Amino acid sequence: MTDMNARNDAEFAPEPGTGYINGKFVPLSEAAIPLLDWGFNKSDVVYDGIPFHAGLIFRLEDHLERFEESMDKWRLPHPRDRETMADICHDLVARSGLRDGIIYLCATRGIPPSAEIRDPARFTSRLYGWSQRLPQLGVPEDGGLEMIVSKVPRIPQSSVDATAKNFHWGDLIQARLEANDRGAQNAILLGHSGFVAEGVGFNVFAVKDGIIRTPEHDCLKGITRRTVMEIAESLGYACQEDNITAEELLAADELFISSSAGGTFPITSLDGQTIGTGKPGTVTTQLHETYWAWRNSAEFTTQVHYDQWAMSA
Amino acid sequence: MTDMNARNDAEFAPEPGTGYINGKFVPLSEAAIPLLDWGFNKSDVVYDGIPFHAGLIFRLEDHLERFEESMDKWRLPHPRDRETMADICHDLVARSGLRDGIIYLCATRGIPPSAEIRDPARFTSRLYGWSQRLPQLGVPEDGGLEMIVSKVPRIPQSSVDATAKNFHWGDLIQARLEANDRGAQNAILLGHSGFVAEGVGFNVFAVKDGIIRTPEHDCLKGITRRTVMEIAESLGYACQEDNITAEELLAADELFISSSAGGTFPITSLDGQTIGTGKPGTVTTQLHETYWAWRNSAEFTTQVHYDQWAMSA
Repeated sequence: MTDMNARNDAEFAPEPGTGYINGKFVPLSEAAIPLLDWGFNKSDVVYDGIPFHAGLIFRLEDHLERFEESMDKWRLPHPRDRETMADICHDLVARSGLRDGIIYLCATRGIPPSAEIRDPARFTSRLYGWSQRLPQLGVPEDGGLEMIVSKVPRIPQSSVDATAKNFHWGDLIQARLEANDRGAQNAILLGHSGFVAEGVGFNVFAVKDGIIRTPEHDCLKGITRRTVMEIAESLGYACQEDNITAEELLAADELFISSSAGGTFPITSLDGQTIGTGKPGTVTTQLHETYWAWRNSAEFTTQVHYDQWAMSA
Repeated sequence: MTDMNARNDAEFAPEPGTGYINGKFVPLSEAAIPLLDWGFNKSDVVYDGIPFHAGLIFRLEDHLERFEESMDKWRLPHPRDRETMADICHDLVARSGLRDGIIYLCATRGIPPSAEIRDPARFTSRLYGWSQRLPQLGVPEDGGLEMIVSKVPRIPQSSVDATAKNFHWGDLIQARLEANDRGAQNAILLGHSGFVAEGVGFNVFAVKDGIIRTPEHDCLKGITRRTVMEIAESLGYACQEDNITAEELLAADELFISSSAGGTFPITSLDGQTIGTGKPGTVTTQLHETYWAWRNSAEFTTQVHYDQWAMSA
């Protein structure tokens, strides 16, 4: 019999971009990881996502520093040094020709040296990466996101360290599907402590009486999150890492998320209740505008040279 | 500059086996999953592992039934029907020529239809699989495993359902590395409840005064676990799912694990303390022998026909 149900990869619209497979650059459509790599079959992998805009890579050094910290927390030997990773990032953009998008780098445990060896300390870690267009969050013009507080609690820090950026998204995906069920666009998760943790791939902020607060625990310390905190300080706002309850989210003047998909985005509805005025708030808008000024400034960006590659490989 | 650090895939001893990539059979060395598949970059994937011995696949129908249950719990549409998956399993073994080994099947969320679409409900799920030699647990002849009770708690059931067989192994890998640090071979994890959950890819059993007990919560309901419970019953032992403490493990007459890597394996040392006599116990040995009788019986196995493939794809 024939595999009549087989899906053809040609079904998928080809995405522009370039892949990097542990030493080789390939078109994004050919970028794949061996099934035997524990980065796939045990999700033994950390990653980073580094946005670029108009040929300018944002906070490259900060992202690579955090990426190395993620490897250390995960006890993954660094598969490449930082300078080499910076060159790979440059080339992933230059080779793709993309002016706007995001770079992903992944460090995996690697492939067992043989079926007899199961000790992860004996593996050789591997580096994968790719550039692609930026995933969209679906925020309407002049509007905001409609979210829920999910019934699924975020994986606790003691089991899997969320500050090491990782692919353990089982809880996040179920929360995202729950948002569909409840007619919302996306979801915020609480930690097992009952305090707000993070969203499905983004950090959460609440503004009340001019004070900006964001969760301290059970969340990724996002680079966009850090940028927003630095911008808030530069604009004279008080900005605190804190324990935040779902009730405090609902009572906020403004709610927003931070994401490398492009800065701060307002949440205008939570669990069916209108937040603040139901329109993007002034603090959120001000932070977003300054964020984009930083994205375009020489101080925080690395220029991509599209006519030359850093690496010959 | 050249990527001087690039590892060459040729470093890895080529493993015999066959891969299946959503419709195509390939040599295991070429079996890979696109980086863009959420099965990799969000670990949005469930799987099953189905052992075979002397050309006999063990409890194929039971494994496929559990695999479909895992998909349902994960809210993943079935990428293939059960009959097709059975044919794929047969062919993964027949094409590999392997007489002894294990088949893995993985159902993933799939690839975003485009960068604009992030709603997992709009994806098309995909099926991957491979056959390979059986990973070894490193149990010495006439001896047992030396284990620790890890300080890392297992991801709670409420965040990620461990009964849906999945690749969220971040906690398990850290526990395994902790075993290295403490001079042991492998690790058992407790749940956040404080009761024993499971090991690094295996279930745990304790025998005391002729009664066999195994954890009820925060663990995969392994097919080998189920087989051991059925064998225990057939041999006249009382076998219970229960809450078990680490102290009860240490006080057991016999401890053993169950694994598709080949039945029951004794634990003779835990946290540096000798368990029972320090030798494989009589209950463990009796269960293991009956397990292998079942593995070789027509009742529980499906014959592989190496001279014919079920699928033309």
